[in-house]
Amino acid sequence: MGGDFGPHCIVPASVACLVEFPSLHLVLVGQAPLIEELLAGIPGVDRSRLRVEHAPQIVEMGERPSQALRGKPESSMRLALETVRDGRAHACVSAGNTGALMALSRHVLKTLPGIDRPAMIAAIPNRKGVCLLLDLGANVDCTAEQLCQFAIMGALAAEVQGASAPRVGLLNVGSEETKGNQQVKQAAALLEGVDGLNYVGFVEGDGLYGGEADVLVCDGFVGNALLKSSEGLVTMIVARLEALFRGSLLGRIAGLLALPLLRRLRGELAPARHNGASFLGLQGIVVKSHGSAGPDGIKSAIRRAMTDVQENLPARLGGRIEHLIRNM
Amino acid sequence: MGGDFGPHCIVPASVACLVEFPSLHLVLVGQAPLIEELLAGIPGVDRSRLRVEHAPQIVEMGERPSQALRGKPESSMRLALETVRDGRAHACVSAGNTGALMALSRHVLKTLPGIDRPAMIAAIPNRKGVCLLLDLGANVDCTAEQLCQFAIMGALAAEVQGASAPRVGLLNVGSEETKGNQQVKQAAALLEGVDGLNYVGFVEGDGLYGGEADVLVCDGFVGNALLKSSEGLVTMIVARLEALFRGSLLGRIAGLLALPLLRRLRGELAPARHNGASFLGLQGIVVKSHGSAGPDGIKSAIRRAMTDVQENLPARLGGRIEHLIRNM
Repeated sequence: MGGDFGPHCIVPASVACLVEFPSLHLVLVGQAPLIEELLAGIPGVDRSRLRVEHAPQIVEMGERPSQALRGKPESSMRLALETVRDGRAHACVSAGNTGALMALSRHVLKTLPGIDRPAMIAAIPNRKGVCLLLDLGANVDCTAEQLCQFAIMGALAAEVQGASAPRVGLLNVGSEETKGNQQVKQAAALLEGVDGLNYVGFVEGDGLYGGEADVLVCDGFVGNALLKSSEGLVTMIVARLEALFRGSLLGRIAGLLALPLLRRLRGELAPARHNGASFLGLQGIVVKSHGSAGPDGIKSAIRRAMTDVQENLPARLGGRIEHLIRNM
Repeated sequence: MGGDFGPHCIVPASVACLVEFPSLHLVLVGQAPLIEELLAGIPGVDRSRLRVEHAPQIVEMGERPSQALRGKPESSMRLALETVRDGRAHACVSAGNTGALMALSRHVLKTLPGIDRPAMIAAIPNRKGVCLLLDLGANVDCTAEQLCQFAIMGALAAEVQGASAPRVGLLNVGSEETKGNQQVKQAAALLEGVDGLNYVGFVEGDGLYGGEADVLVCDGFVGNALLKSSEGLVTMIVARLEALFRGSLLGRIAGLLALPLLRRLRGELAPARHNGASFLGLQGIVVKSHGSAGPDGIKSAIRRAMTDVQENLPARLGGRIEHLIRNM
């Protein structure tokens, strides 16, 4: 029921994913009459792989997380998380209220041992491949300990995805050790003491795209601002180049070459497309799709969840995180 | 003496500015023997507009601001600020330690009435022209009151630069009023009560480049990360397009069209080029050039200082800021 377009976007995107991925089974949790009505309008839905579960309540986009947690025991968000907790689904995808999803995820699924709060993580394209950036907005304030937990989770996630001794950096306003706020300085001191972690120190904003780290850690306020501003910047560049290229025949030819590259980059950065940031640190898989996601965004989030199920991060991270954190 | 290249970069850039701007007079504050030696190597320097003042101490780039403040009464940074305080210069430009420049500026020049701390401000290019973004790194932690002071200073600066009823936004992770950290939520509540301020509410990261505000306020940690990551992103895009364009004759022609636009944009964003962020909120003009600035960056910072002297913001803001803040 979440996101700016709710089931009107999620239902058709779900059906499209069923067609694309023959091994996929989906449970749509929400207002059953509306969902069934939308499904009825789509021909040839394979109902053997699609189940609808009714949820009488909805978490609104502007609602306080505490209200969603205490006041709505039968929200679609909560019941969807419970399908994961109860083993009836491998992963939960939501385009709803981020703060509420965070609070309900922690309550329903619990965090991994040693982890206080989950973080949103996504792979950001850079000059050397990708950088795993976290947190992307689940935690607007973070303690030094939480930043360290993010660093450890990010490093293990990068390893699972194939990186060897991934370089882990802390985002900061400068590279000197006197720079930064208290949380960042304390997190640096803690991370220097973690055995088995390839901590490379402070990384400035340009280092994200310059490829100075394989994993970059910041609080959710900074990560969110950084990701959204990057996406806005690429959108602006595409618009300026389109206008430039429209001016002449030569320009139109140049545009044929340059714009696909830029549009793909925008797609990788755009929250509404790239989408699907994983909540890392829970005893279960939860993927957050951006609220403004259209069908492509929802599909991308479902694909992200399928990859997460294959990688099975929660089970693989569990024991190792506790070990590393105890070493801290 | 500041910045990664010190006088080796600042001296030739200064001489180039003297040639370019016949009305400019410069005082170079630092280790006189070294500066004189560098000047002697440049032919035709107009010494009637260039004075050297000796300063026996240097604030190091990684030094704690408190140490620069208490332990170095004769640093080049401090003596340069004193030329402004004593009316022997209209503005001070430094490529040195940002934190130290901030602390020394407050101590030597004092803030305007009603302002706790100065902010670094710069004009960021966006889809509708420019947005004044502040703080860019002078204050890694900000209270709600300080964010409000930044908003008011930013609005007045935009008006002086020609904007009518500039739209002032607070950078946040979402547009709903429940979103964000405590400082931002409290700042929003305060700003809604300021008469004569066109406060437009929360703006997300993409809104900076989308043109949703004429003035955008955030703490210095966020602003610094955002500006540097934007610069890194444009640098990455330029590199990718250059590689793409190198591939064919057609591509090289496309590059001739597209790359100048991108390089100009990078120049506007690059801290090493665009440079020259003004410290707003002091009883005097101080411009911070990025530490890694080459000669072009230093020249750009000197130009910025000349513009600031013409705009005379400290005097023009003084009375109005106090009036607006009293209304808060």
